[in-house]
Amino acid sequence: MISLVILGSGNVATHLFKAFNKAENVKINQWYSRRIDAISSYKNDIEIIDDLAKIKDADAYILAVSDDAISELSSQLPFENKLVLHTSGSVNVYDIDKKHKRGVFYPLQTFSKDTEIDFKHVPICIETIDKKSYPIIKNLAIALGAPTKRVNSDQRKVLHLAAVFVNNFTNQLYRIGHEITESQGAEFDLLKPLILETAKKVQNLSPFKAQTGPAKRDDKKTMLKHLKLLENQHHKDIYQLITNSIQHTHGRKKL
Amino acid sequence: MISLVILGSGNVATHLFKAFNKAENVKINQWYSRRIDAISSYKNDIEIIDDLAKIKDADAYILAVSDDAISELSSQLPFENKLVLHTSGSVNVYDIDKKHKRGVFYPLQTFSKDTEIDFKHVPICIETIDKKSYPIIKNLAIALGAPTKRVNSDQRKVLHLAAVFVNNFTNQLYRIGHEITESQGAEFDLLKPLILETAKKVQNLSPFKAQTGPAKRDDKKTMLKHLKLLENQHHKDIYQLITNSIQHTHGRKKL
Repeated sequence: MISLVILGSGNVATHLFKAFNKAENVKINQWYSRRIDAISSYKNDIEIIDDLAKIKDADAYILAVSDDAISELSSQLPFENKLVLHTSGSVNVYDIDKKHKRGVFYPLQTFSKDTEIDFKHVPICIETIDKKSYPIIKNLAIALGAPTKRVNSDQRKVLHLAAVFVNNFTNQLYRIGHEITESQGAEFDLLKPLILETAKKVQNLSPFKAQTGPAKRDDKKTMLKHLKLLENQHHKDIYQLITNSIQHTHGRKKL
Repeated sequence: MISLVILGSGNVATHLFKAFNKAENVKINQWYSRRIDAISSYKNDIEIIDDLAKIKDADAYILAVSDDAISELSSQLPFENKLVLHTSGSVNVYDIDKKHKRGVFYPLQTFSKDTEIDFKHVPICIETIDKKSYPIIKNLAIALGAPTKRVNSDQRKVLHLAAVFVNNFTNQLYRIGHEITESQGAEFDLLKPLILETAKKVQNLSPFKAQTGPAKRDDKKTMLKHLKLLENQHHKDIYQLITNSIQHTHGRKKL
């Protein structure tokens, strides 16, 4: 049995609380947040605190707080030589105060408040400084049923950067699809099956092989029609830049 | 029972053949391709021809050929006043020779050679000139179990343009995620669950509400780290342009 204190009240903290609370082999001793109101609805499930002086002993402390808060919160913890983990993709593991055993428990997934998360589909990227901490962190991930991958700092930062492309940037392309359709009298809903299929396709096929469309085919007539149809200069710029990128990838000339 | 001739040998033609061949209430009379070798493996299932003079009578003719071939092929058809449909998102319905009854049967989905398609998830956008053709086209879609939407030319062209953003451009962002990870020693596979979850999220939530990440949060520190980490100028340009787009959408200042 691994004992745990969770710190933070955002989406990651909440999803981790719910998942660890159901997990066998893990016992959550406390849930800390500076903003106790944000988690007070869970007070019947777990001891909730907003005072670090009251923090209990545990095998691991998970700081699921904003990137900027990790360093300071870790130094405020009133103990030392215990395993303290952060959950960020981009913060250095050395940002955790050096009085602790330090590690990273980075769930490579998007968390929303209202969406259920199945940790079977949340790869946990694990980073440690001392080797002895690794099995504890790995067992925490296993308790959630999550796949794990040991990474170093550079790999984790690269994964976080790539995640911005495939998640935030992709979502913005969905948003542009929404703007284009709704502003010109078409229904965004009709695009939803295509969005899902596009994501499913690259689960088994490389994005290189999965590519189709006018840019890859170098179908200039269609591309010019599209540019004419776009009303927003911002959308035109994105159309042109990503078209160039596709043509570069697939050995076509620039538009 | 609706009788049908399919023309073309690409992915759309092949998926339509397979689906209509299984459908009740539809009988495929023939499958035509100029390149008969491309479809000869189906010769035990259906009469295959490469000579338009041999084409049989049918209730509808589906031209699932490349955009540029639609006009010419339609004028070569040795009959008139029959229902002739094309399957393109961007070609004008009037590009079909005016000797025919003309319509569009546009499946708004991505088709790959090796991926099975369930037409339950393929919205069929229907366009007709004469109203009497509409029920025949709609019944063809219903026979596939596909949802249908009647659209006009402008709406169809806008949907096709938006599809390029959410499908081809999104796939290129996956490709860039692949390039970034593999070139810097990380595993693209770790991003696959995130790719899928990002697409699932907008099935029930607007892309506006689904957005997260450093651009939306205006987290300058992380954005600068990311730009520094990107080795390829093309990737940097895309990072900056889509970041600006997100910040514009969410009322943040430009990077």
